[in-house]
Amino acid sequence: MPNSTNPPQIDLAAYLFTRIHQLGIRSIHGVPGDFNLVALDYIEPAGLTWVGNANELNAGYSADGYARVKGVSALITAFGVGELSALNAVGGAFAERAAVVHIVGVPSTASQKARLTMHHSFGDGDFGRYRRVYEGFSCAQVNLTDASTAAEMVDWGLRQCLLQSRPVYIELPTDFVQAKVSAERLEQDIRLSLPVAENDEVIENAAIEDLLRRLYAAKQPLIIVDGFAPRYGISEEADGLVRVTGFPTSTTPFGKGIVNETYPNFHGIYAGAAGKQVYMPWVNSCDLIVRIAPLNADTNTYGYTTLTNRNVTVEIGQNSIEICGALYRDLNTKVFLQKLLSRLDTSRLPCLDPYPDLGNMLQIRDQLPAPQSDAPINQDTFWLRVSHFFRSGDIVMTETGTSSSGGREFVLPPQTTMINSAIWLSIGYMLGACTGAAIAQAEQIASGTRPSSSRTILFEGDGSFQMSAQSVSDMIRNRVNVVIFLINNDGYTIERYIHGMKAKHNWVQPWRYLESPWYFGAPRDDPDYPVFTRRVTTWGELVEVLEDRQLRAGKGFNMVEVVMNVEDAPSSLKNLVLMVQKRNAGGPERMRTEKEVEERVQVTA
Amino acid sequence: MPNSTNPPQIDLAAYLFTRIHQLGIRSIHGVPGDFNLVALDYIEPAGLTWVGNANELNAGYSADGYARVKGVSALITAFGVGELSALNAVGGAFAERAAVVHIVGVPSTASQKARLTMHHSFGDGDFGRYRRVYEGFSCAQVNLTDASTAAEMVDWGLRQCLLQSRPVYIELPTDFVQAKVSAERLEQDIRLSLPVAENDEVIENAAIEDLLRRLYAAKQPLIIVDGFAPRYGISEEADGLVRVTGFPTSTTPFGKGIVNETYPNFHGIYAGAAGKQVYMPWVNSCDLIVRIAPLNADTNTYGYTTLTNRNVTVEIGQNSIEICGALYRDLNTKVFLQKLLSRLDTSRLPCLDPYPDLGNMLQIRDQLPAPQSDAPINQDTFWLRVSHFFRSGDIVMTETGTSSSGGREFVLPPQTTMINSAIWLSIGYMLGACTGAAIAQAEQIASGTRPSSSRTILFEGDGSFQMSAQSVSDMIRNRVNVVIFLINNDGYTIERYIHGMKAKHNWVQPWRYLESPWYFGAPRDDPDYPVFTRRVTTWGELVEVLEDRQLRAGKGFNMVEVVMNVEDAPSSLKNLVLMVQKRNAGGPERMRTEKEVEERVQVTA
Repeated sequence: MPNSTNPPQIDLAAYLFTRIHQLGIRSIHGVPGDFNLVALDYIEPAGLTWVGNANELNAGYSADGYARVKGVSALITAFGVGELSALNAVGGAFAERAAVVHIVGVPSTASQKARLTMHHSFGDGDFGRYRRVYEGFSCAQVNLTDASTAAEMVDWGLRQCLLQSRPVYIELPTDFVQAKVSAERLEQDIRLSLPVAENDEVIENAAIEDLLRRLYAAKQPLIIVDGFAPRYGISEEADGLVRVTGFPTSTTPFGKGIVNETYPNFHGIYAGAAGKQVYMPWVNSCDLIVRIAPLNADTNTYGYTTLTNRNVTVEIGQNSIEICGALYRDLNTKVFLQKLLSRLDTSRLPCLDPYPDLGNMLQIRDQLPAPQSDAPINQDTFWLRVSHFFRSGDIVMTETGTSSSGGREFVLPPQTTMINSAIWLSIGYMLGACTGAAIAQAEQIASGTRPSSSRTILFEGDGSFQMSAQSVSDMIRNRVNVVIFLINNDGYTIERYIHGMKAKHNWVQPWRYLESPWYFGAPRDDPDYPVFTRRVTTWGELVEVLEDRQLRAGKGFNMVEVVMNVEDAPSSLKNLVLMVQKRNAGGPERMRTEKEVEERVQVTA
Repeated sequence: MPNSTNPPQIDLAAYLFTRIHQLGIRSIHGVPGDFNLVALDYIEPAGLTWVGNANELNAGYSADGYARVKGVSALITAFGVGELSALNAVGGAFAERAAVVHIVGVPSTASQKARLTMHHSFGDGDFGRYRRVYEGFSCAQVNLTDASTAAEMVDWGLRQCLLQSRPVYIELPTDFVQAKVSAERLEQDIRLSLPVAENDEVIENAAIEDLLRRLYAAKQPLIIVDGFAPRYGISEEADGLVRVTGFPTSTTPFGKGIVNETYPNFHGIYAGAAGKQVYMPWVNSCDLIVRIAPLNADTNTYGYTTLTNRNVTVEIGQNSIEICGALYRDLNTKVFLQKLLSRLDTSRLPCLDPYPDLGNMLQIRDQLPAPQSDAPINQDTFWLRVSHFFRSGDIVMTETGTSSSGGREFVLPPQTTMINSAIWLSIGYMLGACTGAAIAQAEQIASGTRPSSSRTILFEGDGSFQMSAQSVSDMIRNRVNVVIFLINNDGYTIERYIHGMKAKHNWVQPWRYLESPWYFGAPRDDPDYPVFTRRVTTWGELVEVLEDRQLRAGKGFNMVEVVMNVEDAPSSLKNLVLMVQKRNAGGPERMRTEKEVEERVQVTA
């Protein structure tokens, strides 16, 4: 006899996708496969849209891009072949902290128990092989094989994903898609079940007092904002600290775009030994350096040369703060920073002495002489000049290579979202991520949380584009609005600088890139999804195209092929690869010895 | 003072690539990356050609295809991002036994020891993460960090690769590329250093006598040739046994094309419950079944329904033979089969009773009525009819999906190489593999080991094509000669049959496939690399295109888009997916219970 007080039972897949919808996710990335097909039936009924990527790597990249814009995303692949093809993308999400819920459709528990020689396996009855791989590539693994605990396990996995801002791996066997679970837990939003950050007041107060005292006493302070700030949810607090203190501020490559870069005290990226000559000696004489949410990768620290002396450095992680050598553990830094800002007495902040000109991209850009109209476009000023194109609300993405290096010089309007890769550096990632970012942006525009004039603008190299080109198909299938600047310099120019300027292997097959929308099936003459393509080789052509009304609107699929010289690169890249080159040679001439680096690298939670 | 009797010292990379050249490899697959660039300099001097794939997954697929044609291949990727993108491809090579030497350029030992926060890592100082992943995906792992043992380690890894016909994983740190090693070992060819197969004569004689006795006594025998035969090096012996005994013979899907399929005793693929109705009951009453080099995957055994009773089954593995329940271990089966054939007295073989018509593809094809010229092409007879196109020496490849199912009906001339996937089933694999197979074929034609009229012919689905489309770029870059039949049925028809015939997620974005050569940069009007494209929708158009002289020649890049109905599939696929469907549902209605399967699955070394 049914008990009317029993909570309603629903299918496990319905539970899972309802949870995903509650997280704010509206689009699901992935590729169908024979072990996930039944689960896919639950996507639309849960109010979600199927993106339907052309392959799993691009699906993973796209999910990562979506997560960087909306905070969390979902990806579905099939057992073995599917999930393995996505591994590099999920690895990037792990390394750079994008919260991707990765659901894998796996064989039925009966098949697994019988150790059947199944397709997509090695035929040795080992169904744990891929799960074991993902133990190293996700912050939590969930194997849903028990209906009585499945709902709780899903919640646990999703919580870990949000808390750590890293991928979670969820295995859904075919025979558990329709397992009945209680719907009761769905009544509480999963975000509300996150542990409340309650800092130990004694420790927190001690840390606040310590830091305030140093802020008030500083004579030559510097703030460096890094890219994990959004992952730790402290971007606003970082921006507040920069605004309120007025202290000289820079970012890292990864941290670009997080704080308002039009503040007068903002001085672009601090590039250590690869940067402006006056900057590094000045930093080395600073008496207080606040590093917010740092990522100490070689590529984000210019060969570790931007790492600073611990004795004058405050390092703010996710759950710890180190203040000039004293480590305060188990502190939620969002709460900490909010309290710090509320207690900060601006009248007690130091009146700083004049400091050297550390750089002001806006000024530099606006003082650039007009280029010669028929001169070829070069990397030296392209990135500054193209910045005129940006406006608030835009998502600006730069692929690893000359684009990510050049993009460090962008002048960004406030509320621009900048996406680049700072440690994973998987070329091809950004094209895939662009699909997801643009989908997320469209959802934000629709829900009124981003201006309707916002665009997704990607700078992509030709070699990188080839890696994941079928992402363009995903864009068109989903009628995504994008503006792509394809930097065509005949191959892997970043590799040319590292080793082999003339090496044949650094060339790529020349494609007819501007045919992309047509090849991948864009509609012809559809007013709802216009297509714009143009090739530019001179400054005059570039200026003209940047003023084009259709391109500026950024609706539909837009692609500008920017032809650059094979051996041209932004000077910051030339400097950077010089260091990589020296390090790769393993010789003694690297910028800093490993020992020096070890002393300076601070482990951040 | 140099000692003139000392053996010459060479750079480790030179040693490695010289070894690879000695194995008969002439082309190296891969993608440049900043940790492998210096190593790439050693490729050309070793007499090798750089393929230069557009991405790592396709490089892995291509290396696999090359290995299936030439026996062994090489792949180079970079640390982290590169090697992870190739993982699915290397997994397929492991599962289906393709000998791929996978070389990974990794950071310098100094960087690793200092646990530097390097790009392409998770920044946690763990440089063993990817190596640990590959422990599950390669038969041997070699980490070259000691010049004094490096040459020996290389040799050991290569030997394992050859012996097991599976991938080996070789890590080459940047600072060891130019480490000096003795060239002495290079004087002995690595194949000559393989252990000589010396079977224990007592055991071998007992096994031979046992098997001969059963061959002579058989009343209703059957031989089933499977796909690991070439990996175990016993294809010729398998063919010999079929020819000499005259016993009724079939293959599995994986084993197709290994023995001469024009023998009168050859009866196509034995498809168990999915096959011709008369066949399965007849097999179940056989008194001797010789299974050569089997792969007992669900997809290769039609849901395990072709597995046979152990009491009447002889199963020939690589290093063991089980004869009707008696297991003979540690027997090199190539040597065993050669001795068996030399001792076999054909006069003592049974005179077999007439047996039912098990199927003769040649006959069936030649009795097909001519199709109606303006009728749409359907899957029912397409695969038989297109077989007229094949000739000896051809490599015929069928992608997982309707192509691999339909291709089971091909009528193959002798000396045709057939490549399909039997357990890994990663869609997109075959397009990538086609690049490598065609490169290997060109090398064989150049060296006179394959007829100059040989072609590489690929049957590829549209959904699969999208997965790895930039393989076409690799083909064009390398001026590879291919004939591609692209089956356009608007998506994943195999998935439609499994679940969701009308589901939106089983559709793919419609591309303009025939634009492929132009998009990916094929030269226009180059007599040395002609391009042929044609779209066919009716039988009349198909017949016409198959007679086209340019297409028949198979030189340059050739692509025929064959339009098929969305819901059309070969009947064998319809039957097969019915079983998969039942199994995925986890219900009791599967064709054989797990317990029954366990009893029948025999573990083969």
